[in-house]
Amino acid sequence: MTSAPNPARPLAGVRIVEISSFVAVPLAGMTLGQLGAEVVRVDPLGGAADYHRWPVTDTGTSIYWAGLNKGKRSVAADVRSSEGRDLVARLIADSGVLITNVAGREWLSYDTLTQLRPDLIHVEVSGRADGGTGVDYTVNAGLGFPMVTGPAELASPVNHVLPAWDVSCGLYAALSVVTALRHRDATGQGQRISIPLENVALATAGNLSFLTEVMVNGASRERIGNSIYGQYGQEFTSGDGESFMVVALTNRHFRDLTELTGTAEAVAALANTLDADFTDEGERYRHRDALTGLFAGWFAAHTASEVTEALSASSVLWERYRTFAEVVDDGRLAANPMFTPMHQPRIGEYLAPGLPVSINGDYPEAVPAPALGDDTGGVLAEWLGLSESDIDRLTELNVVAGATPSSGTVR
Amino acid sequence: MTSAPNPARPLAGVRIVEISSFVAVPLAGMTLGQLGAEVVRVDPLGGAADYHRWPVTDTGTSIYWAGLNKGKRSVAADVRSSEGRDLVARLIADSGVLITNVAGREWLSYDTLTQLRPDLIHVEVSGRADGGTGVDYTVNAGLGFPMVTGPAELASPVNHVLPAWDVSCGLYAALSVVTALRHRDATGQGQRISIPLENVALATAGNLSFLTEVMVNGASRERIGNSIYGQYGQEFTSGDGESFMVVALTNRHFRDLTELTGTAEAVAALANTLDADFTDEGERYRHRDALTGLFAGWFAAHTASEVTEALSASSVLWERYRTFAEVVDDGRLAANPMFTPMHQPRIGEYLAPGLPVSINGDYPEAVPAPALGDDTGGVLAEWLGLSESDIDRLTELNVVAGATPSSGTVR
Repeated sequence: MTSAPNPARPLAGVRIVEISSFVAVPLAGMTLGQLGAEVVRVDPLGGAADYHRWPVTDTGTSIYWAGLNKGKRSVAADVRSSEGRDLVARLIADSGVLITNVAGREWLSYDTLTQLRPDLIHVEVSGRADGGTGVDYTVNAGLGFPMVTGPAELASPVNHVLPAWDVSCGLYAALSVVTALRHRDATGQGQRISIPLENVALATAGNLSFLTEVMVNGASRERIGNSIYGQYGQEFTSGDGESFMVVALTNRHFRDLTELTGTAEAVAALANTLDADFTDEGERYRHRDALTGLFAGWFAAHTASEVTEALSASSVLWERYRTFAEVVDDGRLAANPMFTPMHQPRIGEYLAPGLPVSINGDYPEAVPAPALGDDTGGVLAEWLGLSESDIDRLTELNVVAGATPSSGTVR
Repeated sequence: MTSAPNPARPLAGVRIVEISSFVAVPLAGMTLGQLGAEVVRVDPLGGAADYHRWPVTDTGTSIYWAGLNKGKRSVAADVRSSEGRDLVARLIADSGVLITNVAGREWLSYDTLTQLRPDLIHVEVSGRADGGTGVDYTVNAGLGFPMVTGPAELASPVNHVLPAWDVSCGLYAALSVVTALRHRDATGQGQRISIPLENVALATAGNLSFLTEVMVNGASRERIGNSIYGQYGQEFTSGDGESFMVVALTNRHFRDLTELTGTAEAVAALANTLDADFTDEGERYRHRDALTGLFAGWFAAHTASEVTEALSASSVLWERYRTFAEVVDDGRLAANPMFTPMHQPRIGEYLAPGLPVSINGDYPEAVPAPALGDDTGGVLAEWLGLSESDIDRLTELNVVAGATPSSGTVR
């Protein structure tokens, strides 16, 4: 600790080198940066495989890349050259923390790098624990979720759109870094941390019982459409065609739902007929179709705004299904202190999210992403003490590259 | 630091009180426990709203609850009584860390509890930043993902089955705790941390460009079935009816896919016809249907095992879609060092996942979950120094409860 840390930037003073692409490790680096760390993403001279990833602006700048690299510094170096590898290894040694999803390179290995920096924290995200490759969409396919997602009558798999395993993996990586930093503060020791993406998915499926129930009950989850398993949760459609997700987790929620739909008597009669106890969440789930039949009429007989009004006045958990465009257009983002108007060079001004965690009431704010190589010279000078003429020489030799005028403007 | 920490249990010596239900906060507590913290989950005398959550065994024990509370200690206390509240507040003060999703209780507030423990780390997970309620399935409905999930021809929303926002939120909570612990080590200051579930979802949707592309391009993501947006990624069916997810992120992947399907010439001819450059991922995405038409014939003409053999010999990223039962039955879990055979009292023996992060080559192992109140006496004695007669008195007054014989056996 060189100075008193700011509570909202608790990782101030920590330096991290990120060698990455796609979602998991970039998210880890960005998250650590939002907590105050100085994160340098090192990329090949032309950018990593995600530098042009869609969505892009109409001039070809990747909105995607900008979204996952906010607040980082960018160094471009040719690690196919031994001089480039040496420079990057020195940056890693200086920082003391490497996060990467580039596996199997000798010069980037824990054993090699700890010769330069014995207390290195080395975090490697890989595809599978057995050394195989994998990305979010293949890991997800192999795991079972697509076979139980979507309308009950569907026979084919349904992929998720959110790369949920990548996101979780990135957060486990960020957690691992901070835990290792604290451990190093206390003991002086670094750590070699490995996080296979597939293991994040398997652990989550196990923790949430999707695998365990097969082992214990011999039963596998079925495809139940938009119902919530084991609870009463259902999609309804209003008379004017809007969809609502309605959830009754507790007896109070359920009672409110029967009252607002005017079905209290009918539900009681149904309980008698079925010999069911609707104060038990499992019974509500078992008989969900019958219950939904009773409630659906009320939704169909009311407009979306009447439904909204009635649900809002109750304890029932609910939300109207919205599109991304509706989320952007309804004004709630501007009212949310996590979002701030940000000018992103090469893209424009928009509302960007900071860390979704407020610390002592403040959300760490969004900071624009660099262009590739924006900080090559600055980082080499500040971290490694290279002179301007050193950097010019390395640039002429194409060992490193700074931002060119064209990378800072529309292509 | 009272003793030299074990690298694989870096949070050893940290005590945490968890007052929670459902997924996010239980996952945070379990994750911190897997990293070595002593986590005490405090529940009402009859258990919180998730104590009987499905899936359950045929004798009614919740497999779900066991999955998310592995390795914790359980204290049951009646916090409706002032004596119960006082005891729990003293446990929180002793531990110095509270994680909770119980919002809006004066006695549990940061301001009240810091009177007992000024450097408290107080982490509260809530529904929405504006104070509204929300759970994973309502937050997800409001955000846009269900409108772009599932077959392209579908008009209705498709919920996710994995509660991805809960999982991410729990990991942000665990990260926040460790970051705050490190900050407290350095400064002596605690933190008040707030994580609205909706903000986790909104930040993720923003980081991944789903919201940003609306603001920048005025265009919202479309429903594209099992394709991967902006890349070539597609579902194929073998001649014997098995589904495969196939992903070509790089030029090498794509070239290998054309070669193994024997379509190199046809793809080149298609590129000419369309004036398309298939070395550009965006072009592969734009023309995905035409490309898929070329590749699909090869998949249909081969069995699943032929497809598997050919894909395995290539660089292409792929996975066969499997059910949860297939994942359990194929033997890979037993070969995965993250899973260990665990005997869970009241449920039985099964393969349970540890933390999906290996530290210096070791996965922190899975430890069984307690039954409600298993550790009430032990924790009150060890943490607060209560005598056996104190605990007997509190038990007789129904202020606290230990595990009853019936809760340790089949109901």
